[in-house]
Amino acid sequence: MQLVKAEIIAIGDELLYGQIMDTNSHWISQELDLLGVKVVRKTTVGDNRTDILAAFSEAEKRADIILITGGLGPTQDDLTKPLLAEYFGCEIIEFPEAVEAVTSFFRRRGREMTQLNILQGHLPSCCTYIPNEVGTAPGMWFEKNGTYWMSMPGVPHEMKKLMKDFVLPELPKRFDLPIIYHKVIKTVGIGESWLADLIKDWENALPEHIRLAYLPSLGHVKLRLTAFGKDKNLLIEEVQTQIDAVFPLIEKYIYGYDEETLETAIGKLLKNAGKTLALAESCSGGYISHLVTSIPGSSTYFQGAVIPYHNQFKSAILNVSSETLQSHGAVSEETATEMAIGVRKLFGSDFGLASTGIAGPDGGSEEKPVGTVWIACAGEGFVETRKLQLTQERLINIQLTGVSVLNLLRICFNEKDK
Amino acid sequence: MQLVKAEIIAIGDELLYGQIMDTNSHWISQELDLLGVKVVRKTTVGDNRTDILAAFSEAEKRADIILITGGLGPTQDDLTKPLLAEYFGCEIIEFPEAVEAVTSFFRRRGREMTQLNILQGHLPSCCTYIPNEVGTAPGMWFEKNGTYWMSMPGVPHEMKKLMKDFVLPELPKRFDLPIIYHKVIKTVGIGESWLADLIKDWENALPEHIRLAYLPSLGHVKLRLTAFGKDKNLLIEEVQTQIDAVFPLIEKYIYGYDEETLETAIGKLLKNAGKTLALAESCSGGYISHLVTSIPGSSTYFQGAVIPYHNQFKSAILNVSSETLQSHGAVSEETATEMAIGVRKLFGSDFGLASTGIAGPDGGSEEKPVGTVWIACAGEGFVETRKLQLTQERLINIQLTGVSVLNLLRICFNEKDK
Repeated sequence: MQLVKAEIIAIGDELLYGQIMDTNSHWISQELDLLGVKVVRKTTVGDNRTDILAAFSEAEKRADIILITGGLGPTQDDLTKPLLAEYFGCEIIEFPEAVEAVTSFFRRRGREMTQLNILQGHLPSCCTYIPNEVGTAPGMWFEKNGTYWMSMPGVPHEMKKLMKDFVLPELPKRFDLPIIYHKVIKTVGIGESWLADLIKDWENALPEHIRLAYLPSLGHVKLRLTAFGKDKNLLIEEVQTQIDAVFPLIEKYIYGYDEETLETAIGKLLKNAGKTLALAESCSGGYISHLVTSIPGSSTYFQGAVIPYHNQFKSAILNVSSETLQSHGAVSEETATEMAIGVRKLFGSDFGLASTGIAGPDGGSEEKPVGTVWIACAGEGFVETRKLQLTQERLINIQLTGVSVLNLLRICFNEKDK
Repeated sequence: MQLVKAEIIAIGDELLYGQIMDTNSHWISQELDLLGVKVVRKTTVGDNRTDILAAFSEAEKRADIILITGGLGPTQDDLTKPLLAEYFGCEIIEFPEAVEAVTSFFRRRGREMTQLNILQGHLPSCCTYIPNEVGTAPGMWFEKNGTYWMSMPGVPHEMKKLMKDFVLPELPKRFDLPIIYHKVIKTVGIGESWLADLIKDWENALPEHIRLAYLPSLGHVKLRLTAFGKDKNLLIEEVQTQIDAVFPLIEKYIYGYDEETLETAIGKLLKNAGKTLALAESCSGGYISHLVTSIPGSSTYFQGAVIPYHNQFKSAILNVSSETLQSHGAVSEETATEMAIGVRKLFGSDFGLASTGIAGPDGGSEEKPVGTVWIACAGEGFVETRKLQLTQERLINIQLTGVSVLNLLRICFNEKDK
């Protein structure tokens, strides 16, 4: 078994100027990762001779596999092909099979061909021609001192087809690839450093071949375990053993694994229990409903929502008493509680969730500064509430309120379930 | 005027494994391009000492500005800070101001702090501490032989805030950047190629030093004019002359300029006219309310919304007649109309907007396939409706419905205004 290293080189001025986002490198990374090839670097350079040649020679020193995208168009600013010929020290010659492929590509589409297009069938004599069935720029495969190079067009669907049809099946024939297995634990409601603190003994005791990464995002932290070895089933088992060991330490923060999101996790909880949900969103303004309804099939458990952006509608639609609003204010535990109860009743749902707060930038006071939010979860015979003290940023406050409200539902659900 | 070169280094195993897409480098590219700084390379490396140090020294040889994202978390796998200290040959010491900032960050959120968090206020002695107001990992600014370095967290909103507040204003002070002036025309409701067709004569007559770019996104096309020269005021004048010339050709599709979004444009229309808005969202599930309420000050004109995800709530809360629902179905012009009228009445608003459709992936029929959506805008004495035939993708359908509904309000507003 070898540790096989890959580099990805993306070529194109439009990538450096930010006119096009390089989604190719991301996709290639994912595919190589699944194959057990370790991507050690990604490089993006412009349509410039010096920069491209430098990227080639640097990559050769570090990697076993070099995957190149872009710079293969028929126009003068596309330099990848002549520079590959220069780098490998060979001439560009006609590949009759490649010329025929370009010609028939245009014939099939009933489009006229230019001299420039015919030249797309001329390739470095030292490459292996890899047909591109969905475009006009062929793939080119090179071998040099045990290093393998593949040049592909930058158009995503053309690149993907060449990868799937040729590169991904080819690599296991060329290398004795290791087995890599990833599993991601999704947590919510705890910061990265707190989490690290809770699991530090477990983390320090991880075996050499299992690595841990913390991947934080707004309100969430993902823990990624990566195991390296020879036997996939053994790795799966070993990772599961580690997860079983860490689980009791952080159980209450875990909402799912791998691709699961908080929205899908909650959807699953509700669906499995045959329960329904309604939302009363004031400061979150529809964001939580949007999260919930982004999930296919959410109409099974989502009944609906009310966004009462002013006090009179909290009273008129959700039946929050005007006394409560007057004596405690709209941003209060009492109002959040009555909103949750009110919306649960209005939609006849099992759970009613509510948010009310000061998203900012205006509307704060000394007693209730911007970022003060009350949230509530009402169910059969109970109401749970939380006070949040968030940030100065409106959008972040909205998003963190969303995460917190959905997490409160998860907590209530689990507690009431017991 | 100098040619100023920048490199972007993104650090993190998760970027190489394809678990996270590096959107940071793309955003930074765009911002530097607007400033007249030329990005010559982007590099992504993993959480690995050798690779990170190599990326630093390679970048120093090529660039005047080096922007680094990621690897700044408090945990053991984050190496950027110690390696910057090593690279610049200085010690990591306590920056009391930075420790205080982290401490108060936690205090404001009412959360407890760990020893690891305190260490986030310890920085290389040779850096300038740049406060991160929206996170715990500070920015670090270094200068070495006329090269400027900035290290930022990988969390996008933290990176963006540091770029906007510090880096982007700082660079023009350090370098004699060229004068570049951009102006963006925002359009909605017309495709890129149709737009290009309407303005092709104008486009072909643009002077050499004014470039046009089409930047399409879901439902929108931005037209960016970029002018190069020596005199900013002259450039502003020349670009305005071009905009005055193109305006009559595409007037009805233009909703704003530069940073304006459809949401802010509509907010401005409503605010200026002293009018109010309410929403009845079925298939869009809260997305439009979220767009509207993302804008600071939207409570002036946004009254509220109802998301009646099932027929009985369309009747019970919005007063859609059950006869309409039975004979025409929930996804129909009649239901959309009654929803818009109903929500306008419920909230006593000047305008009532409604969406009802099949977002997918399930729920389609031969007569009403996935992607069929009816939208409506009700005002004093009128209701405008539109039928949309969208895609197979749930999220795209939700987003396109949002754009279309807000655009319908814009159209109604402008028409009724005349």
